[in-house]
Amino acid sequence: MRTWSAAAQNTRGVSYACVWLPPHGLLARLPDLKAVINLGAGVDHLLADPALPAVPIARVAHDDLTARVTEYVVLHTLMHHRRQRLYDSQQRERAWRVHDQPAASEVAVGVMGLGVIGSHAADAIARLGFRVAGWSRSPKTLSGIETFHGSAGLDAFLARTEILVCLLPRTRETEGLLNLALLRKLKRDGAAGGAWLVNAGRGQLQVDADIVSALDEGMLAGATLDVFQEEPLASDSPLWSHPKVTITPHNAGDISPGLFAPQVIAQIERFERGLPLDNLVDRARGY
Amino acid sequence: MRTWSAAAQNTRGVSYACVWLPPHGLLARLPDLKAVINLGAGVDHLLADPALPAVPIARVAHDDLTARVTEYVVLHTLMHHRRQRLYDSQQRERAWRVHDQPAASEVAVGVMGLGVIGSHAADAIARLGFRVAGWSRSPKTLSGIETFHGSAGLDAFLARTEILVCLLPRTRETEGLLNLALLRKLKRDGAAGGAWLVNAGRGQLQVDADIVSALDEGMLAGATLDVFQEEPLASDSPLWSHPKVTITPHNAGDISPGLFAPQVIAQIERFERGLPLDNLVDRARGY
Repeated sequence: MRTWSAAAQNTRGVSYACVWLPPHGLLARLPDLKAVINLGAGVDHLLADPALPAVPIARVAHDDLTARVTEYVVLHTLMHHRRQRLYDSQQRERAWRVHDQPAASEVAVGVMGLGVIGSHAADAIARLGFRVAGWSRSPKTLSGIETFHGSAGLDAFLARTEILVCLLPRTRETEGLLNLALLRKLKRDGAAGGAWLVNAGRGQLQVDADIVSALDEGMLAGATLDVFQEEPLASDSPLWSHPKVTITPHNAGDISPGLFAPQVIAQIERFERGLPLDNLVDRARGY
Repeated sequence: MRTWSAAAQNTRGVSYACVWLPPHGLLARLPDLKAVINLGAGVDHLLADPALPAVPIARVAHDDLTARVTEYVVLHTLMHHRRQRLYDSQQRERAWRVHDQPAASEVAVGVMGLGVIGSHAADAIARLGFRVAGWSRSPKTLSGIETFHGSAGLDAFLARTEILVCLLPRTRETEGLLNLALLRKLKRDGAAGGAWLVNAGRGQLQVDADIVSALDEGMLAGATLDVFQEEPLASDSPLWSHPKVTITPHNAGDISPGLFAPQVIAQIERFERGLPLDNLVDRARGY
């Protein structure tokens, strides 16, 4: 086991690279590399490396990562559902006012991206009583959750969704997907007057300026964004001070690195015995 | 079926009164009253009526009420766990900074009050991965949740609890329970430096000034309060502007009244057939 600073001195003999956002070109300098293990869910940065070696790449899919993104999704779905930002503003005005609010069973949440994390998050939201549907590129079947897929299923999925949760990976197909045209297809939550967005996928999926437009025209009642086209978010972005936007610094899936070590070791042991890596990345698909 | 304004003209022939916070003395004016159905979980206001007729009293315990309080508890537990107020303040400063945060599996949540609502809320928190324990006046057994009971079990319950959720009813025994001495017995969340409080029970359980003291001395890292000693909360209360306090206007359990009607009708039909009411209030116990 070597850290990168040690490996940089002697690039021979490194069989496995465990990386998160490695500088492009770095992996090409390891002549004995057998496989790459990506210490997170998103591999878009890795696959964009023009000198990426032709070895198998696995993503970690640890329960800790899954649980944390689910926490984030449940928290921000409930913040929108329970009008927390409205009550925050009332608190600043010392105003005691109760607003009608639908039951969760009357509210349709839609989750885009039904991998390990998306499926887990959708299940957690459904357990709270929401009407949950999921959308994915290819067909998926989930217990208790209505599913849609592909471009043919997208409009019907959006038309029934009042709170949209995006957990998609960044690929050529998903870049710019969360644009004004898509957001206008969402169902408006009757009581709030608009739909709600939670993006904890990738910033390149959303068009930041279109989110602002959708909020300002009332199509969106509020948005929680963990990811942005450019990160860190530029200090002059209008998103920071928009009263309907909640911003977090791409930490939805922040994990305890120590919890990953046993899984990484198990992956390498399996691979050394000739078995395939778990959660293998499909380069053509992009995730 | 009569509304109170109609019944006030003719108080004879009213067998069942479905009430929420009725003026004291009102029920005593109904000579033919057979039973009272309280349209909420708390009966403290009702039992404080010195002229309360000696008829059975039932509380509604509808899935909608239970689900909504659970939403509230999950939302505010996660807001504390995920440091949402810290990220809110960073957003105001346009600051992109990530803070370490424990996994839910490393955090101990304690729920006081294990009736229908408390048990449901505890289960929902446990499903998100938190280490959940419950405390109640009398012994309870819950699947997957450690339980404590009575005054003998209170200190041990507090000593392992970093996020305290209070869903207790107001009784002679619970008044003033959430005071500085009790709050100082909580376990401090290592990363946050203090414990967290969510009170969605009754305002008379807490000593408002002690909450402020516990926050200011750092024993509490934050508090969410839905209930207060005096409601509406006085506009000069220091709680409104305290940076570590989240205030909601006693709406954790606000429900859709229409959903209750079938249950009330079923209760009355059972009672007319000679069966006992569900969720009967024990006047001596106070809930």
